[in-house]
Amino acid sequence: MRIGGKHYRTIWLNPDGESVEIIDQTKLPHKFETVTLRTLEDAARAISTMQVRGAPLIGATAAYGVALAVRDDPSDEALERACEVLAATRPTAVNLRWALGEMQKALRNQPRDKRVAAAFARAAQICDEDVETCRKIGEHGLGIIRAHADKKGGETVNILTHCNAGWLACVDWGTALAPIYMAYDQGIKVHVWVDETRPRNQGASLTAFELGAHGVPHTLIADNAGGHLMQKRMVDLCIVGTDRTTATGDVANKIGTYLKALAARDNHVPFFVALPYSTIDWTLSDGGAIPIEQRNAEEVTRMTGRLPDGEIATVGIAPEGTQAANYGFDVTPMRLITGFITERGVTPATRDGLFALYPEHRKGRAA
Amino acid sequence: MRIGGKHYRTIWLNPDGESVEIIDQTKLPHKFETVTLRTLEDAARAISTMQVRGAPLIGATAAYGVALAVRDDPSDEALERACEVLAATRPTAVNLRWALGEMQKALRNQPRDKRVAAAFARAAQICDEDVETCRKIGEHGLGIIRAHADKKGGETVNILTHCNAGWLACVDWGTALAPIYMAYDQGIKVHVWVDETRPRNQGASLTAFELGAHGVPHTLIADNAGGHLMQKRMVDLCIVGTDRTTATGDVANKIGTYLKALAARDNHVPFFVALPYSTIDWTLSDGGAIPIEQRNAEEVTRMTGRLPDGEIATVGIAPEGTQAANYGFDVTPMRLITGFITERGVTPATRDGLFALYPEHRKGRAA
Repeated sequence: MRIGGKHYRTIWLNPDGESVEIIDQTKLPHKFETVTLRTLEDAARAISTMQVRGAPLIGATAAYGVALAVRDDPSDEALERACEVLAATRPTAVNLRWALGEMQKALRNQPRDKRVAAAFARAAQICDEDVETCRKIGEHGLGIIRAHADKKGGETVNILTHCNAGWLACVDWGTALAPIYMAYDQGIKVHVWVDETRPRNQGASLTAFELGAHGVPHTLIADNAGGHLMQKRMVDLCIVGTDRTTATGDVANKIGTYLKALAARDNHVPFFVALPYSTIDWTLSDGGAIPIEQRNAEEVTRMTGRLPDGEIATVGIAPEGTQAANYGFDVTPMRLITGFITERGVTPATRDGLFALYPEHRKGRAA
Repeated sequence: MRIGGKHYRTIWLNPDGESVEIIDQTKLPHKFETVTLRTLEDAARAISTMQVRGAPLIGATAAYGVALAVRDDPSDEALERACEVLAATRPTAVNLRWALGEMQKALRNQPRDKRVAAAFARAAQICDEDVETCRKIGEHGLGIIRAHADKKGGETVNILTHCNAGWLACVDWGTALAPIYMAYDQGIKVHVWVDETRPRNQGASLTAFELGAHGVPHTLIADNAGGHLMQKRMVDLCIVGTDRTTATGDVANKIGTYLKALAARDNHVPFFVALPYSTIDWTLSDGGAIPIEQRNAEEVTRMTGRLPDGEIATVGIAPEGTQAANYGFDVTPMRLITGFITERGVTPATRDGLFALYPEHRKGRAA
């Protein structure tokens, strides 16, 4: 997507062919800076400190992390260690594990002298595939938005989203936001309610940033506000992303997603989850079994932003020493989800719906 | 309640007998400062800038605001103007209107030379009544907490609350927190999940502060987290306050309350609303008719806190120029509420439940 007229992906190989560049998302929206990853440790740190985040982008970064590790040491042991280090960075998103699996498949049977080239090639391919996957998600979701616009006689379609499932969460386009970008580009009137998404404010800092950069009308709201907006008929549909989806249709996504799904159900607002195939965990049949990451309590007791003089500062918002809990994700049960928007089409959030789109996984069917 | 061993109310008459002192709640939890109110304008500003907030305390401050106005000018015109100015400060809380009505009743038939004394006397009485009302709410709510403690064999009872309905929201004790203080004081093991309550962070800044000052165990959480905690059986009950309650049992409370009530219902967690009689609007039978205050968008795009050097600073958290919407309250329909905890006892959140406790209002029955 474009920032200031220039096209960017969120991650790319540098011209040296052996280092990787990312946009430092911890600095957004205040500063646009990139960071160079040269080692496995750089990649692991970028994921765990959330310089990169979003399930698809975590996967892409992990793939390049394996490539950087293999460049240093192409042994089986080094490959295995790289996968262990990267898998430990974030427990909930399954794309991370999917991407590591893809890299292992690509490298395991390669002679050591071909591993470096094969690793960078597969990582680049994972990135390109992600872009194409997200573009298709956008096309399939576009139909849903267009139907709402038609039903409203061309009036603005109001879409609520939580966290950031835009191009900053992927390599390009985004998952939940891809249909919105496409609708906007085609002249359909859209307006996005952007949940702030405490404690890390991905809505305020990332979604508002990327929608603004593209020119899509949007309004930032506190996470508390969505229920009221739905009660007042100010939301036509919700679209969110997912970090892990069970084979039965439960969805682990950013903490607070479940609350919005409850409000959508209570107010008959369609609630869609946009996802690439790589976030489906075919081994799970119960969302309650998805491991939920607990993060540093300081993310709750502190807030980072821009002082009037432009300096970036972190302020404490609670009494000194206040204990806080910081669960990163919650699980939205399939019964609250209207449908999945995938790269293969739109389907009900059910086992049958998923198997209809991905018949090749029927054999690996979860118990 | 106590701060650093000293007993405080949130509002009191100064020894000069003609100025009123309040705790400046916009400075909490970082600084404990009081502010002197000498005029009607001081009182109106204290309410609209939220130096005082919380439905009962807004009512008490408005009562003293009338007294300060009458001291300057005891005419009927001045009394009427004072009530208009104060009523315009916050649209949702009905205690404000209730308190103004009480002051008018107390003053209307008084000769002008007795109005000043009568006004300060009635304002003081409203404060004392609020303390007694909250104490009784605490006693009635205590029974509910004790029952949970008994059911759990003395294990810790986990209570989730939203915003601040503690002693800082009242003159003393609080509404939702009064039963918690009493349970704690009686040695019942309690732990409070404190919703941060964006955008103004009343949970992080006020509820965490007052629970901490009293020694009640508590954990601060993002507003997004409550649904997950309930899914994981980490919440035994919810208790919140209310800014306006219809005669049929719908409740307008701080934005986000509705989302927690939905999660409580979905997870079979009891959801109680604690309220004094003065928050009941006997003229309304539909929560959808309650006016919902919209506040400055900067409350959403900015955040105030403490820099590492102790200075208080406000940081911008969204891209410059981001549009935001800021609805102050939402309405929780009576169907989601387990019961009301009032100064007269616990009752179902229904018209019949309220009339059973307040039979004197049957005649003024809403359509």
